[in-house]
Amino acid sequence: MVTIDLDFVEGLTLEERAALVSGKDFWFTAKVPGVDRMMMSDGPSGLRKQNIDASPADINDSVDAVCFPSSALTASSFDDDMLYKLGTHLGIAANAEHLGVLLGPGVNIKRSPLAGRNFEYFSEDPLLAGRMGVAYVKGVQDQGVGVSVKHFAANNRENQRFTSSSNIDERALREIYLAQFERIVKQAHPATLMCSYNRLNGTLNSQNQRLLTDILRNEWGFQGLVMSDWGAVADHVAAIKAGLDLEMPGKGQASVDEIVAAVKDGRLQESTLNRSALRVLRMVEKWGKKVTKADTYDKKEQHEFARQMADDSIVLLKNDQNQLPLNATDSLAIIGELAAKPRFEGGGSSHVNAHQVVTPLDAAPAGAQYAQGYSLKETATDEHLATAAIELAKKSDQVVFFAGFPEEMETEGFDKDTISLPTNQNDLLAKVAAVSSNVTVVLENGSVLEMPWADQVPAIFETYLAGEAVGEATWDILTGKVNPSGKLSESFPLRLQDNPTYGTFGKDHDEEDYHEGIFVGYRYYDLHEMPVRFPFGHGLSYTSFAYSNLTVEEGTDTVKVGFDLTNTGKVAGKEVAQVYVANQVSRVEMPVKELRDFTKVALEAGESKHVTLTLPRRAFAYYNVAKQQWEADNGQYKIMVGSSSRDIRLSMAFTLTIGTNPTSEVTGNTYVGDLWANQDPHVQKALKDSGLYEILAPMMKDEKWVAISANIPLRSLSAMGIDEKIRKAFFKALK
Amino acid sequence: MVTIDLDFVEGLTLEERAALVSGKDFWFTAKVPGVDRMMMSDGPSGLRKQNIDASPADINDSVDAVCFPSSALTASSFDDDMLYKLGTHLGIAANAEHLGVLLGPGVNIKRSPLAGRNFEYFSEDPLLAGRMGVAYVKGVQDQGVGVSVKHFAANNRENQRFTSSSNIDERALREIYLAQFERIVKQAHPATLMCSYNRLNGTLNSQNQRLLTDILRNEWGFQGLVMSDWGAVADHVAAIKAGLDLEMPGKGQASVDEIVAAVKDGRLQESTLNRSALRVLRMVEKWGKKVTKADTYDKKEQHEFARQMADDSIVLLKNDQNQLPLNATDSLAIIGELAAKPRFEGGGSSHVNAHQVVTPLDAAPAGAQYAQGYSLKETATDEHLATAAIELAKKSDQVVFFAGFPEEMETEGFDKDTISLPTNQNDLLAKVAAVSSNVTVVLENGSVLEMPWADQVPAIFETYLAGEAVGEATWDILTGKVNPSGKLSESFPLRLQDNPTYGTFGKDHDEEDYHEGIFVGYRYYDLHEMPVRFPFGHGLSYTSFAYSNLTVEEGTDTVKVGFDLTNTGKVAGKEVAQVYVANQVSRVEMPVKELRDFTKVALEAGESKHVTLTLPRRAFAYYNVAKQQWEADNGQYKIMVGSSSRDIRLSMAFTLTIGTNPTSEVTGNTYVGDLWANQDPHVQKALKDSGLYEILAPMMKDEKWVAISANIPLRSLSAMGIDEKIRKAFFKALK
Repeated sequence: MVTIDLDFVEGLTLEERAALVSGKDFWFTAKVPGVDRMMMSDGPSGLRKQNIDASPADINDSVDAVCFPSSALTASSFDDDMLYKLGTHLGIAANAEHLGVLLGPGVNIKRSPLAGRNFEYFSEDPLLAGRMGVAYVKGVQDQGVGVSVKHFAANNRENQRFTSSSNIDERALREIYLAQFERIVKQAHPATLMCSYNRLNGTLNSQNQRLLTDILRNEWGFQGLVMSDWGAVADHVAAIKAGLDLEMPGKGQASVDEIVAAVKDGRLQESTLNRSALRVLRMVEKWGKKVTKADTYDKKEQHEFARQMADDSIVLLKNDQNQLPLNATDSLAIIGELAAKPRFEGGGSSHVNAHQVVTPLDAAPAGAQYAQGYSLKETATDEHLATAAIELAKKSDQVVFFAGFPEEMETEGFDKDTISLPTNQNDLLAKVAAVSSNVTVVLENGSVLEMPWADQVPAIFETYLAGEAVGEATWDILTGKVNPSGKLSESFPLRLQDNPTYGTFGKDHDEEDYHEGIFVGYRYYDLHEMPVRFPFGHGLSYTSFAYSNLTVEEGTDTVKVGFDLTNTGKVAGKEVAQVYVANQVSRVEMPVKELRDFTKVALEAGESKHVTLTLPRRAFAYYNVAKQQWEADNGQYKIMVGSSSRDIRLSMAFTLTIGTNPTSEVTGNTYVGDLWANQDPHVQKALKDSGLYEILAPMMKDEKWVAISANIPLRSLSAMGIDEKIRKAFFKALK
Repeated sequence: MVTIDLDFVEGLTLEERAALVSGKDFWFTAKVPGVDRMMMSDGPSGLRKQNIDASPADINDSVDAVCFPSSALTASSFDDDMLYKLGTHLGIAANAEHLGVLLGPGVNIKRSPLAGRNFEYFSEDPLLAGRMGVAYVKGVQDQGVGVSVKHFAANNRENQRFTSSSNIDERALREIYLAQFERIVKQAHPATLMCSYNRLNGTLNSQNQRLLTDILRNEWGFQGLVMSDWGAVADHVAAIKAGLDLEMPGKGQASVDEIVAAVKDGRLQESTLNRSALRVLRMVEKWGKKVTKADTYDKKEQHEFARQMADDSIVLLKNDQNQLPLNATDSLAIIGELAAKPRFEGGGSSHVNAHQVVTPLDAAPAGAQYAQGYSLKETATDEHLATAAIELAKKSDQVVFFAGFPEEMETEGFDKDTISLPTNQNDLLAKVAAVSSNVTVVLENGSVLEMPWADQVPAIFETYLAGEAVGEATWDILTGKVNPSGKLSESFPLRLQDNPTYGTFGKDHDEEDYHEGIFVGYRYYDLHEMPVRFPFGHGLSYTSFAYSNLTVEEGTDTVKVGFDLTNTGKVAGKEVAQVYVANQVSRVEMPVKELRDFTKVALEAGESKHVTLTLPRRAFAYYNVAKQQWEADNGQYKIMVGSSSRDIRLSMAFTLTIGTNPTSEVTGNTYVGDLWANQDPHVQKALKDSGLYEILAPMMKDEKWVAISANIPLRSLSAMGIDEKIRKAFFKALK
């Protein structure tokens, strides 16, 4: 048994060290004398451990594994405990398969509804994405399996993802695109981060020293390894220098030769190579397993968890007149090919060779009748299929209509160009709604869609990509066996055109300008006071909840928010209570409100619980670009507690005092109006001593001068007809 | 008589030269032996020559002068000839008052509806602003009076205007915020430019060498003088070095001492000082007049022109069922205090001591009855006034309702916080519309407003700030004496929230981030396919026009657009035909369409004219930031001819060939899909020689691989399972 340290690394040959910083192949690290290879595998929602003989490009040839819901759905749980359990199950499976590192979770922000990979990301909100990520990572790693949190960073589109530059202002970068990575690094200590393909403000991420070293290691204290996304390295030497430790996959001997040559001709210092080689060895030492025949594990239990995870996450969007749950005695029509061939997982690296898929049709109650309605392989209406579906709808008490995006529409590797359902689905849905007033729409899709028919049906719920237990979970909700408690982790706009990225997303092949800055998702729709189809945080229940008795109390470095939550309905249920904070004092651009905490509370019918949440100072902070630090303004805030971002139930004004006071330094750029309002005794004295007070006092009684003075700086005091000598005297007195 | 040249400058004492580069006082340049002082004066819409004894701060104590319409209205003429005539009249007046330089026109872009100074700017579109500016400047300068085109540049808000930084990406800066200055400098050779208060991307404009020297002089070839806006200089020495020639106003002996000291201690080279002093002297030599008692000039003729200018510009926004012109025999109610006390000019430096104001009430037909309706000094409804107005409306055949912003709401020096009319006006208008179906709304305001009542009245027209002949011009339109022909030079959104700057404009005291980039005004509403109240370029007539026979023909460096325009109605009228260009080939962000030319055509009833417009290459160009040059993509465009930006009458696909071909250079960053589509024989040969063709050919018959290859670059060819050796062989063969 060897001791992994710098001495050990230095004892390896140059070729051995060079071999370590590239993958041996698609899935393995290189082995060196005394340290075996380590295997990693895709699969944020279930293992995608490729069969070793499979072509790397044959993405669907992987081992049998339970397919859990995609992150779009699991984030809708708003349930840290469930995400931890999900991680636990993934860790158990990965252990059984002798995997060292699991390549996930993906925690990028859903900036545009068109981004092809939204289904495997958590949210448009960095707090939610970060919280879900922390719980997931801890769950996996507590089983002795490392993770690779991806894709670091600002990889928000698929088209031209190898070359496109994500151009983001520093504040948006910190507050929106890095915050969830920061939280996960600091709270969950992931084994590795996976650096993404794209450029960030012009620099390729795999060669981005500021990102991979200055921010990740020096600021956040990351101790793990950084590997590349598969093929993200353009210049391996530059990448190692910038802070990348492991190129994946390796290019075989070519990778080794490249590094050896760079060391020999002085372009790469040995100490830099050794640093990365050591990180690879430490990863293998901590997380590597002996690669043997896989162990067995309880896939039935994992299937059952996949069902619970979906049950906890499905979002009831609409339920007019308590349309749901369905009455067991009603006659029932099931319409839509997605009932028989459900979308339950994403494509690309998320694809799982699912253990046991239960379709909605499989799980349907006896007696329910099925009509295909449309073909997933077509977008045009098949009149024969449509007519049969409409006839079935007419003669049934209840219609459950399955709608969603066909798999070809959304997968890793391409962006979408629409968020409309295919014409054949939208048309049929409108026709069915015209003949039946009891239509429930069940959605299967990886990301937001337009619902032009939303006002014509009484009930809608969103299952996203619900994993292999999709059918069971769907009927759990439809029948009321489970009371839905999911909340939207992203805003559903009325139309794609309402999104801030519309018309510019993906238009420039080389540059993606993040025009909207920090105003992503609900931060944008709120800013422009725009109606949306369903807001961030929205989700209904079969029971109802009342909020009361809000208290807000400032401590030495936290703010405690307390309230009572009561189940006022007739069945047990769970509510995700959301705390939003509005900064009303800042002198910089500020969202109308931001999600700063949430908790999921289970309540029996009639039960009340007191909820207490503790907000850290950071929950009040923005990133001050000039000062390069997080800063919380002291002053006026509003604390809002709600059932969604647009269903605020309690709200209270609050004055923060544990932050930073606005600076009161007086310079030539200080506006006369601000000077006049300055209560600093030193400033007051200088005003009087210089004679400026006597001149301004009568003017500031005149509304016109009050208005003008608000926009005249002291350096231009002469524009108010005040002598230069007075200005000079004032600044002299101020010193 | 002296000869003004560098020798003359060098013959002056250091103190004299130092004196020249600051104003002597608020309105005069310094005099030196042999060269007299020169006076300048405010007044883009009529002279604001202050009485010399007046306090500079007493902005309204100026000589009697004719008040012409503000630029918000004159730009609505879309009439280069009329703008030239306006300049002529201003030049005549300035000559009579012995002014050397007239401080105007203001040509900044109307970025936010809230910007306090929009009334004195031309447009949200740089072509229109530039064309209006060129004609105006030529008109003034052909009378021997110089102009100072202001405010250079990107001065798009009033609050904190002395310190706020306009943070604009380079492309938006060039295409939107500088393009109209560039056009005016190159085509009209203004005597001077006035540099604005604000910072631009962090650097104070008065100290901005890139703006004042690199772009203005070196790129555009500007030969005139740059003066500061009043009080815009913070560091005079830094300003002179950056390219500012004249600080206004001067700070007296302090200004002289400052410059002398800087030269003496080596912080300012004498040659730099001499260069600016020479520019001041050349300005005085060319434009200066002997300051004596003012001459007389024909103010009656100028008043008549003010009326014609307004007649040519007023915009008929709505005229359902030919509500207008009014029938002379109908009984008539005039409602609204603005009929008696009209808003006809802007506040601040635009304010004119108007020669002879004719109010709408003055000009009203005999027999018309008047009700004040609301008080301009209040925002709450005065029930007594309102009731009287409603009663009058009830018993009248026709109601003309005067509405608009009170003067306090919009002036230089402050931004607005709403674009709603005061509550008392909106409420009364709704009530009057409820009792009369014949309400015509006449608007008096400096900038766009919300019209929640627009669907409840049959007719609306916009007079903006129409100058001292406001009353006559208003009745010219109402009675049909003049057939309206104005078009909106800005978009009227449904609500302020629809504007891209909503929620961020003016929020940051120090920084104004131009998030929307090039998507300003209609470019934004078009991009997001948003409904607006009235679109850019919109304006109705009492007759109708038909467009036909569009031809588009490419020459050696221009594109000729031809079409026939016919007056299909029963009265003579003028139509502003607008040519928009849509680039459908670009690989960068691109507006849906852009105004690239327009012409105003007078047609008798039944008359037809053939219109030919010649678009230069620049009309197809965007600013390529990487290459730092204007570039027109060769390829597919659409040429659209319309009566407004949303009333396109003719449209034609067109392939440009006089521009630049997209580069076909193949690098490691070239995507496999693009490579496969590359028709270059050299590339084709390398594909075959290297063996890559044989590998790709079967893959590119598979839809899945076609899709994947579109987003895999050659440097990551291994991700498609293709050996590194093949990639290397291909690039070797390509060399």
